[in-house]
Amino acid sequence: MFYKALFSLDMKKAHIISIGNELLIGDTINTNASKIGIYLTETGFSVDRVFTIPDDPEAIHEHISFSLSQADLTIVTGGLGPTHDDVTKRVVSEIFKCRLVNKKVVLEHIRQIFKKRGFKLSQSNIEQAMVPEVCDVLFNKMGTAPGMWFHLENRYLAVLPGVPYEMEYLMEHEVVPRIRNTFPFLDACVTEYYKTAGIPESTLSDHIGNLDEFVNNGVGVAFLPAPSGVTIRISASGENNEVAEEKLKFIRQQLKERAGAYIFGKGKNLKLAEVIGRVLNERNLSIAVAESCTGGFLGNELTNIPGSSVYMKGGVIAYSNDVKSGLLGVNKEDLENFGAVSKQVAIQMAIGVASLLNADIGISTTGIAGPGGGTTEKPVGLVWMGFSFQGNTFALQTIFSNDRLINKERTAATVLECVRRQLIGLHGYPYELKPNYP
Amino acid sequence: MFYKALFSLDMKKAHIISIGNELLIGDTINTNASKIGIYLTETGFSVDRVFTIPDDPEAIHEHISFSLSQADLTIVTGGLGPTHDDVTKRVVSEIFKCRLVNKKVVLEHIRQIFKKRGFKLSQSNIEQAMVPEVCDVLFNKMGTAPGMWFHLENRYLAVLPGVPYEMEYLMEHEVVPRIRNTFPFLDACVTEYYKTAGIPESTLSDHIGNLDEFVNNGVGVAFLPAPSGVTIRISASGENNEVAEEKLKFIRQQLKERAGAYIFGKGKNLKLAEVIGRVLNERNLSIAVAESCTGGFLGNELTNIPGSSVYMKGGVIAYSNDVKSGLLGVNKEDLENFGAVSKQVAIQMAIGVASLLNADIGISTTGIAGPGGGTTEKPVGLVWMGFSFQGNTFALQTIFSNDRLINKERTAATVLECVRRQLIGLHGYPYELKPNYP
Repeated sequence: MFYKALFSLDMKKAHIISIGNELLIGDTINTNASKIGIYLTETGFSVDRVFTIPDDPEAIHEHISFSLSQADLTIVTGGLGPTHDDVTKRVVSEIFKCRLVNKKVVLEHIRQIFKKRGFKLSQSNIEQAMVPEVCDVLFNKMGTAPGMWFHLENRYLAVLPGVPYEMEYLMEHEVVPRIRNTFPFLDACVTEYYKTAGIPESTLSDHIGNLDEFVNNGVGVAFLPAPSGVTIRISASGENNEVAEEKLKFIRQQLKERAGAYIFGKGKNLKLAEVIGRVLNERNLSIAVAESCTGGFLGNELTNIPGSSVYMKGGVIAYSNDVKSGLLGVNKEDLENFGAVSKQVAIQMAIGVASLLNADIGISTTGIAGPGGGTTEKPVGLVWMGFSFQGNTFALQTIFSNDRLINKERTAATVLECVRRQLIGLHGYPYELKPNYP
Repeated sequence: MFYKALFSLDMKKAHIISIGNELLIGDTINTNASKIGIYLTETGFSVDRVFTIPDDPEAIHEHISFSLSQADLTIVTGGLGPTHDDVTKRVVSEIFKCRLVNKKVVLEHIRQIFKKRGFKLSQSNIEQAMVPEVCDVLFNKMGTAPGMWFHLENRYLAVLPGVPYEMEYLMEHEVVPRIRNTFPFLDACVTEYYKTAGIPESTLSDHIGNLDEFVNNGVGVAFLPAPSGVTIRISASGENNEVAEEKLKFIRQQLKERAGAYIFGKGKNLKLAEVIGRVLNERNLSIAVAESCTGGFLGNELTNIPGSSVYMKGGVIAYSNDVKSGLLGVNKEDLENFGAVSKQVAIQMAIGVASLLNADIGISTTGIAGPGGGTTEKPVGLVWMGFSFQGNTFALQTIFSNDRLINKERTAATVLECVRRQLIGLHGYPYELKPNYP
């Protein structure tokens, strides 16, 4: 509901046209359109339409013509491959009333790629080097299909391959720079993403409270929830960067005052494991994981970070009770008396893995991931998390949902958020957790 | 490239309209459109357009009117929430020239939900119970916003909330049954998904060869590639189910003859770990994992399957060499002489984890996940996988890409495909693997 404030009437309009039957049938989710939406929004455009249309010359002709008449900028993806369904180039050359011509630099690039792979060039590969005469070629380092940039009076059109990483490469290196050159008068738009983990959206929203009074005149705030945590997006636009920045500064300050303790960092793709990794590296500390209910998810999160082998000793996936007692040294009587999902077992797992792998920090998870296995006393979603910080031990408990995969993801996010808070000396735990010191 | 054959000119056309600024800005990926695309394709419609448009009354009016004039069926999602941006209902009542009226059954439903949560009904909540007079209410058990079904001569329109699980509930329980009643003469369309893992799309395509001669007259084949494997989708339509089934049977047979050995099962959401779990359960076998480069990903895949605790003993994330030698018993000299990424270490890790966790099967991964850490001799993407099957041991090697996360995912998929092949006595390994028996 905060989005509206982000748009103003005098913004330049952009359309996105996604070509491909696989998108209409539902076999492929249209991630390209949202990625392009982010690029365009950040360069100050108002994205006004996304048209998803079939690999059909008539539909392509109709929609590109329509968008050229309505939007200042149109980005088209798809239909540039070597197969017979890929007709975009032919249609565009009709719209711009020009021939398809061979571009030597493109053909040479395609030739090199095929040579490297040891394949022979076919006629359809050679045709990939043909482009409408009036376009600027957007040189595609990531694949064989060239991108294209057109203009017709004061309307602009970019045609890009549908392969996601090729599209992204061309947007970033070719299209965005051209947009900035072509529309230097655009309102500056600044956007920042702040990341939280282990806190439900409603709790976060309670802490932040009502921002309505600040959200207007080109300033926006949005919550983007995911099982691993809520991302907060703030943005502001203004006639130049200074004005936009000034507006953003104010909303950023409000956000930090109200919810700073819950924010682990800045950046849309920042991972909590990365933040923790940085602190562990700085302090020369090592970590190890003992996973029951998360079954490897937590280790995977930590090892997704390049260079994590410096501080990540490894872990034990202790799925069976035998492994918990035999390998991690959990007391068999405690397993019997309190059950595998208990404070006692969580703490002993954390201590056990730290000692076994000779790590400074041991963390553990044990819970009922679901969908089966719950009782009235220990329902599906009940999770105990154990922590051993250089001898200082504690455990936390929470109840998540009935969904096995979401429970694994939320457990890992919550454990990592607790590690972060402990590392930076922030006491108090994410909401909904019941601390249980032994 | 095979998609075209799936469409025929006399099919009924459907449009999808997705309303929401968050979709245009790129904050939210439009997964609703692809899910609706699947529902519509399976009921025999040709999905002809997806329009993604802003929360703007004019745009909503323009596009719903356009789709009502062009498509036999239009599905609209979004803009039904309680906030002021949610204007879809007002626009639709204008298009159908009728009043918004209060529906008691809907209001009572909303009242119950709020009572259960202990909240007070606000005016905006009461307004959610208002619907255009001429619609059939699609009762929404999953939330407070009702769905709506309209018809205007022989054109049909469904308006649904944008919350994914509410949309899905209403599509499945309300919209699809109405479609089947309203369009009983529609061609039947049958679709099947076959899953493969650990085989690149190009290799699979080489095995299957040219299917062009079979792909026509309402029969389609498509490859849907992902790092974890390629899904093959076959579909057929005909005047009734028998005719469609007959066509599908033929293409299914061709597929199985040509690539049967690479298919691990049927079903779009089927996981390889589930198939392996079934076999392990049947044979009363247990498994354990020793993960270096996958860092927990492989264990996570196995433990994502409900009930996996029966056969999954657990594992060791052996990220540091100390853990490889200390815990898994890998020979220190071998680690030194051959390096951590080697046949010898992979096999000893597999043997070690099977013995340590007392499992029938031990599997291991060790590789250079990237982006750093490669050498000319051992480049980024080099992976060794070790296997110990009740004493029978071997290792396989391959080179994947430069992307750390994709390398983890592909490694896990390839290891699991090798386990499946070994379990069912299928010799030969997925393409690109170099078997190295010790």
